[in-house]
Amino acid sequence: MTIRYPNGKLYHIHDDKKKTENQPKKKKISYSKRGMTLEEDLNATNDYYLLRKKAVIHKKPIPIQVVNVDYPRRSAAKITEAYYRRASTTDYNGVYKGHYIDFEAKETQNKTSFPLKNFHDHQLNHMQACYEHGGICFVVIRFSTLNRVFIINFPQLNKWWNEQFEEKGKKSIPLKVIETEAIEINYGLSPRLPYLVVVDRLINEQNI
Amino acid sequence: MTIRYPNGKLYHIHDDKKKTENQPKKKKISYSKRGMTLEEDLNATNDYYLLRKKAVIHKKPIPIQVVNVDYPRRSAAKITEAYYRRASTTDYNGVYKGHYIDFEAKETQNKTSFPLKNFHDHQLNHMQACYEHGGICFVVIRFSTLNRVFIINFPQLNKWWNEQFEEKGKKSIPLKVIETEAIEINYGLSPRLPYLVVVDRLINEQNI
Repeated sequence: MTIRYPNGKLYHIHDDKKKTENQPKKKKISYSKRGMTLEEDLNATNDYYLLRKKAVIHKKPIPIQVVNVDYPRRSAAKITEAYYRRASTTDYNGVYKGHYIDFEAKETQNKTSFPLKNFHDHQLNHMQACYEHGGICFVVIRFSTLNRVFIINFPQLNKWWNEQFEEKGKKSIPLKVIETEAIEINYGLSPRLPYLVVVDRLINEQNI
Repeated sequence: MTIRYPNGKLYHIHDDKKKTENQPKKKKISYSKRGMTLEEDLNATNDYYLLRKKAVIHKKPIPIQVVNVDYPRRSAAKITEAYYRRASTTDYNGVYKGHYIDFEAKETQNKTSFPLKNFHDHQLNHMQACYEHGGICFVVIRFSTLNRVFIINFPQLNKWWNEQFEEKGKKSIPLKVIETEAIEINYGLSPRLPYLVVVDRLINEQNI
């Protein structure tokens, strides 16, 4: 019996051994695992918020440049050559209480500070533009080894971002500073990362 | 000399003849051309709005499920097996005057009516959810052969969508009805499709 995954790929039973024999030779870098846990937590939280009609916030698909596609059958177009493109925006956006919500999520293995190199110019520019149009923009950062999650409002992040280019500017933000200037989110059961509580505070502070 | 495209693919000079000899045998369905013109017009318009600081509205990337990636060099990860996934939301969203904007764009070759089969349940559900949270939701439709573009507000589209399942319900909306109930956008030079003029009207009507 031929078993197939929903994407049409064949499922081979008993080939686990073969796989482990063949694959370690290849250099396998799994980018899909990068920031997995924070992303999973946020996706589960967004599903919860959507179901409970609290907010409609989605992660955007990863931008991919498709070069070649095969059409063995119409129902299963197979992309055979494609490349990752650089995103021009942030990862998450949506609507909450009539407000436009826009944020980026990043993790670090560091224990004492958060490196600013996790963010990129175009992300800051995008958040700046959205903020100027009355959007609620922020970043969700996670210290993976400490399992602590913070929300940094865009104006605060932007201040730190610009300061790094000054003389003696810091390239990473000490946890002690983050504890004072950012807002910590405590893990919950449902939702896992109740970040809308913090968004309510940002809306109040932004006076919109 | 080896010439490569920015994506790393080899550029073959003088192989145009070979290409046309080999390729017609394959069944090539170019999904990338579907709705190209309206999409191009909207993207150009969004670029204009972004540059002039009028609004921040982007087209979302097409969702793709990546199955296999080769890493010949780290700088050019090559996706060798991937499949198109179904989008769970609409194509465009962003922020304008503090409002969350969400829309879908569709074209038809028809000259007298717009078939509702161009839309899908999940798109209507997504727009319904966003609308309930105070978002501005609509569809941009284009009659390609007539080169006429209309904006249909979500509540109006939803009414037509639901009516199609009633007895004698229409599966497509006559152009004459669209002319009365929807708002036409006249093509301009810059921006090409000045749809924010219509969005201003929707904001006023929605009283938010």
